[in-house]
Amino acid sequence: MPSQPDQIIIFDTTLRDGEQCPGATLNVDEKLAIARQLARLGVDVIEAGFAYASPGDFEAVQRIAKAVGTEDGPIICSLARAISADIKAAAEALKPAAHARIHTFISTSDIHLEYQLKKTRSEVLAIAEEMVAYAKSFVTDVEFSPMDAARSDPGFLYQVLERAIAVGATTINIPDTVGYLTPSEFGDMIRGIKENVPNVDQAIISVHGHNDLGLAVACFLEAVKNGARQLECTINGIGERAGNAALEELVMALHVRRQYFNPFLGRPVESDTPLTRINTQEIYKTSRLVSNLTGMLVQPNKAIVGANAFAHESGIHQDGMLKNKHTYEIMDAQSIGLTSNQIILGKHSGRNAFRTRLKELGFELGDNELNKAFIRFKDLADKKKEVTDWDLESIANDEVQQVPELFRLEMVQVSCGDRAYPTATIRLRNPQGEELTDAATGTGPVDAVYKAINRVVNVPNQLIEFSVQSVTAGIDAIGEVTIRLKYGDRIFSGHAGNTDIIVASAQAYVNALNRLYAALQSASSEQMAEEIVETR
Amino acid sequence: MPSQPDQIIIFDTTLRDGEQCPGATLNVDEKLAIARQLARLGVDVIEAGFAYASPGDFEAVQRIAKAVGTEDGPIICSLARAISADIKAAAEALKPAAHARIHTFISTSDIHLEYQLKKTRSEVLAIAEEMVAYAKSFVTDVEFSPMDAARSDPGFLYQVLERAIAVGATTINIPDTVGYLTPSEFGDMIRGIKENVPNVDQAIISVHGHNDLGLAVACFLEAVKNGARQLECTINGIGERAGNAALEELVMALHVRRQYFNPFLGRPVESDTPLTRINTQEIYKTSRLVSNLTGMLVQPNKAIVGANAFAHESGIHQDGMLKNKHTYEIMDAQSIGLTSNQIILGKHSGRNAFRTRLKELGFELGDNELNKAFIRFKDLADKKKEVTDWDLESIANDEVQQVPELFRLEMVQVSCGDRAYPTATIRLRNPQGEELTDAATGTGPVDAVYKAINRVVNVPNQLIEFSVQSVTAGIDAIGEVTIRLKYGDRIFSGHAGNTDIIVASAQAYVNALNRLYAALQSASSEQMAEEIVETR
Repeated sequence: MPSQPDQIIIFDTTLRDGEQCPGATLNVDEKLAIARQLARLGVDVIEAGFAYASPGDFEAVQRIAKAVGTEDGPIICSLARAISADIKAAAEALKPAAHARIHTFISTSDIHLEYQLKKTRSEVLAIAEEMVAYAKSFVTDVEFSPMDAARSDPGFLYQVLERAIAVGATTINIPDTVGYLTPSEFGDMIRGIKENVPNVDQAIISVHGHNDLGLAVACFLEAVKNGARQLECTINGIGERAGNAALEELVMALHVRRQYFNPFLGRPVESDTPLTRINTQEIYKTSRLVSNLTGMLVQPNKAIVGANAFAHESGIHQDGMLKNKHTYEIMDAQSIGLTSNQIILGKHSGRNAFRTRLKELGFELGDNELNKAFIRFKDLADKKKEVTDWDLESIANDEVQQVPELFRLEMVQVSCGDRAYPTATIRLRNPQGEELTDAATGTGPVDAVYKAINRVVNVPNQLIEFSVQSVTAGIDAIGEVTIRLKYGDRIFSGHAGNTDIIVASAQAYVNALNRLYAALQSASSEQMAEEIVETR
Repeated sequence: MPSQPDQIIIFDTTLRDGEQCPGATLNVDEKLAIARQLARLGVDVIEAGFAYASPGDFEAVQRIAKAVGTEDGPIICSLARAISADIKAAAEALKPAAHARIHTFISTSDIHLEYQLKKTRSEVLAIAEEMVAYAKSFVTDVEFSPMDAARSDPGFLYQVLERAIAVGATTINIPDTVGYLTPSEFGDMIRGIKENVPNVDQAIISVHGHNDLGLAVACFLEAVKNGARQLECTINGIGERAGNAALEELVMALHVRRQYFNPFLGRPVESDTPLTRINTQEIYKTSRLVSNLTGMLVQPNKAIVGANAFAHESGIHQDGMLKNKHTYEIMDAQSIGLTSNQIILGKHSGRNAFRTRLKELGFELGDNELNKAFIRFKDLADKKKEVTDWDLESIANDEVQQVPELFRLEMVQVSCGDRAYPTATIRLRNPQGEELTDAATGTGPVDAVYKAINRVVNVPNQLIEFSVQSVTAGIDAIGEVTIRLKYGDRIFSGHAGNTDIIVASAQAYVNALNRLYAALQSASSEQMAEEIVETR
């Protein structure tokens, strides 16, 4: 185990539960970029995906296992239902990892047994036992979750957990799947497990929760006080519905209040040994990377990583701040890496300085991507005097995205205004290499661009979200556009940054269309691939 | 009191603590629009501002007291330091309210006494006693807060509270000013007060907190279990740094888990009487109004009011949802008013239908504003087939804003594209009535527009935030632009909606510049007005 029993294990599920939220879909390269950053952040376990769910998920788990799951790297984990095909796929995908974990789950609440599984309690008990043992035949590190534990009968829950541990589960993870519990109830549930599962000392108790009532972080901290030693969380708290517990809030609460939590971990009150292995100075950068790649914005009043979290406005408070920093601040911006030196590049910066800085920022681009990024950097440096780390991240993120370039935007040209008819002209190259040019008018410049693109790309879709954020202060800033399209039940996102937000909008739209188009093309081949996984 | 002792009093401080966060500054008309909606939402107390802070704050409290503080309306409250001039100004501003409350505060923690107040404990005790008594000479309803209570010596805290109650405080409010406490500690603090302040049964215990560690809501719920009966909160949890406890999360947690909380309020477990007087179906609309007017975005994974809070993506969950709604949902979207019927207007809708629907949505515009809004509605209906409630809200919000129209945007015209130099031409009318036209190039169309405007409006400023959100789904949507400018230490925001985001950007920039310009002009007259308040 990478963590001592008096330390808290941080299990990050940004790439599994986090990616499950509407519109946050990531491609394999984006997942890999996030996994690399999570390793730098120092998480103990990365849940890289649900290998059986699709060939794309399988590939993501496999590539992360290979690239990030090194000997001194984090444990790489795949989710798997308590079904042999799922577990087999997880084991297969995880093979390249030095430290691999299979995380298998089955519902234990009566409401789920009746309506979803249509199985009896004794059937579920037998399946859990059999499937944990099966997972154990592939890896030594097996995590078992009784889904909807919070609404399960405690007696039955204890029984399932005991059997899972008996056949080899090394971590038992207790989820509040619907985000229903208050912190005291969550703490009581963990204490109940600690007191009533006879072999509980042979496993780590983990917790998983959802933030539907805004209580996920508080629930987890109460669980720690009652014996939980692993926290399942996501960057920025993204995830199903209102999301999961936010990694940054958990880690900073345990850090800022370590003297309060020390005794619950059997340590002296005054101990200054960190409660987690997280390098807190990587928190802010990780938050931005996840926000950029998923398109899930962070609100300004978000704890720890929001734009206002370390800003003070009120006159009274400002006065207090000047007199003594600790009158109003319980942590400083430096602790999450917010004020780390921004090395600023300019138009005279060379290719080497550019590559070195990108590497320091955590981006390792291939030669081709680096070339493209460098051209964009030079172009930007011509327009802006100072190119900051945030600009560089925006450029590198675009290259990391690697959207399949089926349609390529060759030109966009727009005129608009309050007295003019917004008009756009675009030129695209289609997958067959043909050049297509068309124009359209619209209610605004973005609408005109999208209508012109729709004239040459014939993929019906519905735009459900469009947002622009400037990534750097100043009016010559890069604007980052995120859009989401709906096609049937599926959502596709596109993201692009440019100093011209109309150009960025066009590029983001083409990126999303390319993803949609690729999905349509591979729909049949994907079905075949799934059958292959199933019969393996 | 509007609430029974077995109900929780909801004290909304969106207009005071919420408005204090960087960039969220509201003008008086915007505050009034929010206060009206808060009354519709059913909050018990509206903290309308800090009357002494500025003539603008004084006017806001006074106008809200008059318009919203009716006989059957909420209590209207003004904050006041424990200084006679503050209390006098609060009393004066609150005069028109049928139910008025003065909320006075002084720090009680040693760190604040030493570094900020430079006073001894006995001096603070005497001031608290004298100033509560002074507030009581104006109103019967007096709230007293020992600032930074969480870091105060408990013995001294009890003593101050006892004296404040003895001289007439009817509510004692316990703040965790720096957002430091865990829920158990917050609960213990309230229990300590309940057990150690002899006359505590003569006052309502209230709580106030900050979300720096993501724990504010959990802290408050623990406080309720230990005797707190008033919660100070804000819509969307906005406020200093990471914000306050979110009203919607508190209310829905108390609502969804009422059977859990009932016994702590001395009620039978099964009681279905609501724990608060909030009309939960107004929650979503209130959230959007506050987000639009403050420009403080709500992240998609925000509990209760985030765009994803009621969306389900994962295949497993969707399957469960279809089988039984309660397998994964603990509340439904209807309970917060998310699915209320959207009456859709079109190009044939008349002036009356428009006015009626705006009124139903909570906007009561004057004739002049209504005329302007109706013209914009007709213009929009020409471009879009269906005009939804959200479009109407966007239009009405723009009119409610009432930015001083010192500079007026007369025309904007832009051409841009990836092969063109972004170029903007603008025409403005200045406060003297002169028409000014100029053009500029920029790194993008927005930059070009801003540079062109800067050429004719000579007010140096720094753009610190620029964001665009589409308010309705579909590519012909209205784009809402929010920008924030910095001038010296002050931040000014501008907000505008248009189907053309370049036009919206220009208008938002002019709005922010007008606010900045008005502040510069009134800087000297404001100082005079402050002196008048002081000597009154």
